Amino acid sequence: MTSCAATPFPLLAIDWGTSSLRGARIAADGQVLEQRGLARGILQVPAGGFEAVLDEAFGDWREQATHCLVSGMAGSRQGWIEAPYCPCPAGFDELAARRVWVPGARRPVAIVPGLSCEQDGLPDVMRGEEVQIFGAMQLTGLADGLFVLPGTHSKWARAEAGRVQGFRSFMTGEVYALLSQHSILARTLNPEAPFDDAAFTQGVARARDAAGLLHHAFGARALTLFGRLDADRLASYLSGLVIGAELHGAAPTAGTPVVLIGSDALTARYARALEVHGVASRRLGAEATWAGLHALSLSLD
Amino acid sequence: MTSCAATPFPLLAIDWGTSSLRGARIAADGQVLEQRGLARGILQVPAGGFEAVLDEAFGDWREQATHCLVSGMAGSRQGWIEAPYCPCPAGFDELAARRVWVPGARRPVAIVPGLSCEQDGLPDVMRGEEVQIFGAMQLTGLADGLFVLPGTHSKWARAEAGRVQGFRSFMTGEVYALLSQHSILARTLNPEAPFDDAAFTQGVARARDAAGLLHHAFGARALTLFGRLDADRLASYLSGLVIGAELHGAAPTAGTPVVLIGSDALTARYARALEVHGVASRRLGAEATWAGLHALSLSLD
Repeated sequence: MTSCAATPFPLLAIDWGTSSLRGARIAADGQVLEQRGLARGILQVPAGGFEAVLDEAFGDWREQATHCLVSGMAGSRQGWIEAPYCPCPAGFDELAARRVWVPGARRPVAIVPGLSCEQDGLPDVMRGEEVQIFGAMQLTGLADGLFVLPGTHSKWARAEAGRVQGFRSFMTGEVYALLSQHSILARTLNPEAPFDDAAFTQGVARARDAAGLLHHAFGARALTLFGRLDADRLASYLSGLVIGAELHGAAPTAGTPVVLIGSDALTARYARALEVHGVASRRLGAEATWAGLHALSLSLD
Repeated sequence: MTSCAATPFPLLAIDWGTSSLRGARIAADGQVLEQRGLARGILQVPAGGFEAVLDEAFGDWREQATHCLVSGMAGSRQGWIEAPYCPCPAGFDELAARRVWVPGARRPVAIVPGLSCEQDGLPDVMRGEEVQIFGAMQLTGLADGLFVLPGTHSKWARAEAGRVQGFRSFMTGEVYALLSQHSILARTLNPEAPFDDAAFTQGVARARDAAGLLHHAFGARALTLFGRLDADRLASYLSGLVIGAELHGAAPTAGTPVVLIGSDALTARYARALEVHGVASRRLGAEATWAGLHALSLSLD
C-alpha cells in the first residue's frame, strides 16, 4: 500500500462496530490505499460525540475524500444515527437505496443499514456483516452460496442470485468467552496455551454427538479431571466444541460453496471445523468490508 | 418435625456440597427428626478446617448420634478427605462398601464416594447425587428408570434392577447463570420478574428446533429487540431454552419412568418441560438425600 495523503481520493470507508473502529481510504478503482484501526467502538463514544471521534481518528483523510460511507453498529439505535434494517430477501440495490445520510454533518456521511430476516419463526439481525457479504460476492464472483462470518455473534447467510435470502446468528464467540473465562472450566483452562489442532478437531468431532453442548462442556471438565485432556489443550478442545455446536446447528451441506469472512485466525478454525464435516470453504478478510463499501459508494450520488 | 435434642438418635446425615452444608438428625426408622442448612460449602472451608466447621454447625447433634455419614463434595480432592469414585454400573451395596472413614476424627465420620462412568467415550462424575438416587429408589420403590437431578450440573442417571448403569451431566444451571448475568441478554433481562409459564414453555418448544442453543440464545435477543418478547418474560424464556436444550440432548423417551429430584422450584420447571416433550415425571425433594443416607447408614457396622 502506498501512502499518498496529498492526493484526493473518492472514498473514506468506515466499519464502526461495537468495540472497534476501522477505516480505509479507497481509490476510484477500489484499491485500498491505506487503513487504520482503533479501539473506539460505539460503546466508547459519548452521546453526540460520533463526528468528533470520526474526525479525531480519520480527520486528515476525511478532508480529501469525496464520500464517507459507514457500516456497522454506528447505524444502530445506540449508534450515531439509526439506519433501519433492510428486510431480507435483500440485494445490493436495496441496501444501497436505504443508506441514511447523517443530518448536519460537517462533510457528507452516509450510513449503511443492517439486514433483518425472519427464519423458522425467529427474527434475526446483522449490522456490518451485510457489507462484507456483498463485498465477498464482488471478490469471489459468487452469487449463490453460504457466507459465514464467525465472531461474537456468528452469522450464516444464504445467498441466491446475488441476494441474501435469510441468515441465522449464533452466540458462539460470546459463549466461548463465558465458558472459558467464567465457568468451572476456567479453573483449569490455560488461555495462554498455543492452539492445538488435534484437541480442536477432537472437540469439533465430539460436538457432532447429539447430547449437545451443555453435556459436552461438562465432558471437557470430566476429561481434565481424569487426566485425559491436558489443561494446555482445554482451550482448543472447548473452541472445537463450541464452533462444532454452531456447525451442527447450521448444518451446511457438502457441495454448497462456503465463504468464510473474518480474521485469519478465526476463519482458519472454521475452515478446519468445516473440513471435519466434509465441507470445503474459502476464506476472506478485511478486504471484503472494503470491497463492499466501495461497491456501495459507486451508487452514492 | 419434633425437636427432641435430648434424645440420642442413630444418624447425623450430612450433605456437604460446593456451596452449601445441610444436615439432618434421623431416627432408627428413617424418620427425619430435624434438619438445618448453612451457606458453608466446601469452598468456604479453610484447609484442615472441616471437622471444626462440622462441629460449629452440628456439634450439638453430633454428640448424640451413633453415626455421622457425609455425602457430596466433602469427599472430593478439594474436600475433607477423598473418597474415590465408585465406577458404574454400581448398586447400593458397592456404594456402601466403598465408604471412607475419616482418620483421626473426634467422633467417627464416614464419607460416601461419588459415582463415575464412561458413556459414549466420555467420562462423567457425580458426588452427592448418587445418595439422592438410591434414596429415591427407596422412596418410590422404583428399581428401573431415569433419575434426573437438575442443578448447576444436572445429572441424568439410568437405573436398571436397582443399579445405576450410567449417567450424563449437563452444565445447564451454570450456562443459564452465565447467559442471564453476563451475556448480551443480561442488558435487558429482568432477574426479579416472576416466573412466566407461557414464556418458559415457548422456550422449551423452541429448543426442540435443531439449530441449537447458540442460535436460540441469540434469537432471544432478537425477539426482545423487535418487541416480541418482553424484558419481564426473557428470564423464563431463556430458562426454557436452556432446560429445553438439556432435554433435547438427554432425549428421554415417553414411557420410561422419570423421577426428578431437587428443589421444588426447579423440579417443577423440569416436570413442565418434560410435559412439553410428552414425558410424565414424579418429583422428590430433600427427603431423597435423607432416605439415601439413612439406608446407607444401616450397613455402617
